[in-house]
Amino acid sequence: MTLHEEMMETGKRALQAARELARLSTRRKNMVLEAMADEIAAQRVQLKEANARDLEAGREAGLPAAMLDRLELTDSRIDSMIAGLRNVAVLKDPVGAKISKWLRPNGLEIRKVRVPIGVIGIIFESRPNVTADAAALCFKTANAVILRGGKEAVHSNRAIARAMTEGGLKKGMPEYAVQLLETTDREAVRELCQLTGYVDLIIPRGGEGLIRAVTESAHVPVIKHYKGVCHTYVDESADLPMALEICENAKCQRPGVCNAMETLLVHEKAAPAFLPLLVARMQECGVTLRGDAAARAMTGEAAMQPAEEADWFEEYLDLTLAVRVVAGVDEAVEHINFYGSHHSDAIVTASESSARTFLHEVDSAAVYHNAATRFTDGAEFGMGAEIGISTDKLHARGPMGLEELTTYKYVVSGKGQIRE
Amino acid sequence: MTLHEEMMETGKRALQAARELARLSTRRKNMVLEAMADEIAAQRVQLKEANARDLEAGREAGLPAAMLDRLELTDSRIDSMIAGLRNVAVLKDPVGAKISKWLRPNGLEIRKVRVPIGVIGIIFESRPNVTADAAALCFKTANAVILRGGKEAVHSNRAIARAMTEGGLKKGMPEYAVQLLETTDREAVRELCQLTGYVDLIIPRGGEGLIRAVTESAHVPVIKHYKGVCHTYVDESADLPMALEICENAKCQRPGVCNAMETLLVHEKAAPAFLPLLVARMQECGVTLRGDAAARAMTGEAAMQPAEEADWFEEYLDLTLAVRVVAGVDEAVEHINFYGSHHSDAIVTASESSARTFLHEVDSAAVYHNAATRFTDGAEFGMGAEIGISTDKLHARGPMGLEELTTYKYVVSGKGQIRE
Repeated sequence: MTLHEEMMETGKRALQAARELARLSTRRKNMVLEAMADEIAAQRVQLKEANARDLEAGREAGLPAAMLDRLELTDSRIDSMIAGLRNVAVLKDPVGAKISKWLRPNGLEIRKVRVPIGVIGIIFESRPNVTADAAALCFKTANAVILRGGKEAVHSNRAIARAMTEGGLKKGMPEYAVQLLETTDREAVRELCQLTGYVDLIIPRGGEGLIRAVTESAHVPVIKHYKGVCHTYVDESADLPMALEICENAKCQRPGVCNAMETLLVHEKAAPAFLPLLVARMQECGVTLRGDAAARAMTGEAAMQPAEEADWFEEYLDLTLAVRVVAGVDEAVEHINFYGSHHSDAIVTASESSARTFLHEVDSAAVYHNAATRFTDGAEFGMGAEIGISTDKLHARGPMGLEELTTYKYVVSGKGQIRE
Repeated sequence: MTLHEEMMETGKRALQAARELARLSTRRKNMVLEAMADEIAAQRVQLKEANARDLEAGREAGLPAAMLDRLELTDSRIDSMIAGLRNVAVLKDPVGAKISKWLRPNGLEIRKVRVPIGVIGIIFESRPNVTADAAALCFKTANAVILRGGKEAVHSNRAIARAMTEGGLKKGMPEYAVQLLETTDREAVRELCQLTGYVDLIIPRGGEGLIRAVTESAHVPVIKHYKGVCHTYVDESADLPMALEICENAKCQRPGVCNAMETLLVHEKAAPAFLPLLVARMQECGVTLRGDAAARAMTGEAAMQPAEEADWFEEYLDLTLAVRVVAGVDEAVEHINFYGSHHSDAIVTASESSARTFLHEVDSAAVYHNAATRFTDGAEFGMGAEIGISTDKLHARGPMGLEELTTYKYVVSGKGQIRE
C-alpha cells in the first residue's frame, strides 16, 4: 500500500467512526472516557517502558534537555493524564445543544443545533500527554480523531493511544474513533492535510516549521495553534506597583508558554518612573532586557542590550524581554497589530478612555485591562479543558474548549411548506 | 510592479482600511451604504454602457444564452442592487454585540464580543450584482473587501465598484474599504489566496474549477460556497400529496439554484403508489427523469432514462431529476451522506422516528422535515441578506448573513489580577 492509499484508508475508517460516534449517548461517551482512564492507569508500567525507549533514543540523538524534559512521562504526568480524562467525562456535553430556535412567518420552525465537526486531524510535537488530552476532547464531542505526534515521542504516543483504544473498546467505543498515525514519514502530514472529503479540520500545534508545512499544503480547513508574541502596555496613568506585578507575572511565572509576555511597551511619560523599577525587578528574576534607544537612555545602557527590529517579532519563550518606549496608546496599538501574533495583549492604565481604545483596536484573540496575559487558557477562562489556543480568526479564536470542537446545523420542521 | 507586488499592495491597503473601518459607528456605515445606493442610481446610464460592452464581448466570444442572461444589468436588476444596498443599511449591525459575559472566581470579567473578521477576499463568477451585494455586507460588518469577479463581467463590475466607492467616499468611507482587482489574470486568484498576514478569509462562490483552484492554492482560510446536490427522501409513511407538492417545488420552482432537488429517494413501500404520481407530475413540468432499475421497473422503462453511478453525484441545475428506490431511512441517510454535497436535504414522513433518524444523521448544513429544500437561503431564514451559502463546516455553515461575517474576541477586565 502506498502512503497515499494508507492515508485514504485511515480517512475512510475515521469517517465511518464519526458516523457511529454521532449515535452515542453522552452517558456512553463518558463510560468510554472512564474506561480509557482506567486502562492508562492499568498500563502505567508499559507506558513508562515505552517512554524509556523514547528517552533513550532522544539522549542518543542528542536532544536538548528541555525537550527531553517535555518528553518524559513521570508518574505525576501519568496521573495528570488520567485525571484529565476523568475531568473530560465530567464536563457538559455540547453536542445536540440548541443554539437558537425561531419560527418563520410561513410556519417553518428553524433550530440551530450543535453537532460534531466530523473528523479532526491533530498534528503536534513533543509532549506525549497531548495524545490523551486531544483524543479525549475529540471523543467527548463525537469527533473521530487522527493524531500525528512528534517522531521523538513515537513509542510513548503509541502506548497511550493503544491503552485508550483498549480501554474504550470495552465500553463500546467505535473501533477507529482514535487513530494514531503509525508512520513517522513527514510526507504523511501533507497527505493528511489534503484528505478533503474525509478530514474536516486540521489543528496543527507547534513551531514555525510545522505551521508552515501545514498551511502551505492543506486543502482541508486549518485552525492554527501558533505562537504568542504577547505585549503588556504600561500607559501614562498606570498604577505602577500594579504594572510591576503584572509584568513580573506575565514574563516570569512561566516564560516558556504562549501567553507569556515577550514585549513591554511603556508610555514615554510613565517610562522615567517605571523603567528603573522594572529593571530592578527583572534583574531579581534573572530576566535579560533588550531595549530600544529611548529605554536604554533612561535606564543606562548597561541595564539593557540594544533591541533590533527582529526582537519585536520574537517569541523568546525564555527569560528575555524586549522593551520599547511609545508616545501613547495609539502607537502601542499600532506596534502590537504590526509585530504581534494576535494572541493576548494587555494594557495597564487608570484611564477608561485609553483602555477603551486599546481593547477595541488591538486585533487579538484576548485583550486585557489591568491583568496579566497569562490568563488566556481554557481552564482559566472556565472552559474546563482546552485542546489549545487558536491564533486564527475563523471558527474559533483564543482558547478552544469542547464547544469550539463542534459546528452546527439547521434543523427545519414543516407541515408541507413550499416556496412561493 | 510584478503581480505579486501589486497584490501585496492591495493587501496592505485593505488591512489599513480594515483598521479604519473598525472605528466607524453604525450610523456612519449606514450613511455610506445609502450614499453608495444613491451613486449607483445616479450612474445608471454609465453602468448600462459598461454592461453593454461586456454583453457585446460575450456575444462575440459565443457565451451561452444563459450566461449572457446572468450577465445582463437590466433596469430592474439595477433597482434590485440599489434596494439591496438600502436594505443592508437598515439591517442590525452585529459588530460590537456582546455574545456572552461571565465573571471568574478571581474577579476577572470576561466578555466575548463580536468583531469584524478583517480583510475578506471574495472570488465569484458571472452575475455583476454580486459586486454590490458582497461589498455592502462586508462594509456593514466593517470588513475590508477585495473582490475578484468573472472576466466576462469586468466592465460591469468596475462600473459598480467605482460608483460605490465614489458614493461612499462622500460620506467618509475609508478609501480602500472596497477594492476590485483590476487584473483579470488568473494567477491573481492564486496570489490573493496566499496573502497570509493581510487577508483573513477567502470566500469562493462558483463551480468546480474555481473551487478547486482556490482550495488547492490557498494558504488563507477558505469558506467554500459550492454546489448543492440536494435530496428529498419520501418515506414509507409520507403523505403522498404533500410529498408531490414538495418534490415539484424543490425541483421545478427554480431548477438552476443550489438548493433545488437533484435526487429523489423513495421508500420501496411508498414507491409503487408514489412513483406513478411523480412521473405524471414531472412530465407536466417538463422534467427528465433518470431512475435506478427498481424505479424504472415500477414506472415502465419509457418513463425514466437509466441512471448511472455518476448521476448520484450530479448537480444538474436543470429540469432533470435522478430517482432511486431505497429500503428505508437508513439507506437514504447513507446515500445522502455519500453522494450528497452536505447542503440541504429533506425527508417527507409522518413517522417521528424516521424524521428523528434522518434529521440527526444526515450530515448537511440544513435538514428538513416535511418542507422543500428551497428554503435554505438567508432571506428565507430571516437573516435579511446573505453573502452566499457555505458548504463548509467551519465557522459558518449554510446561509451566511451579517453575523457570519464577524468573528469574536475576548475582552478581559481586571484589577491587577496575576496568575498564581
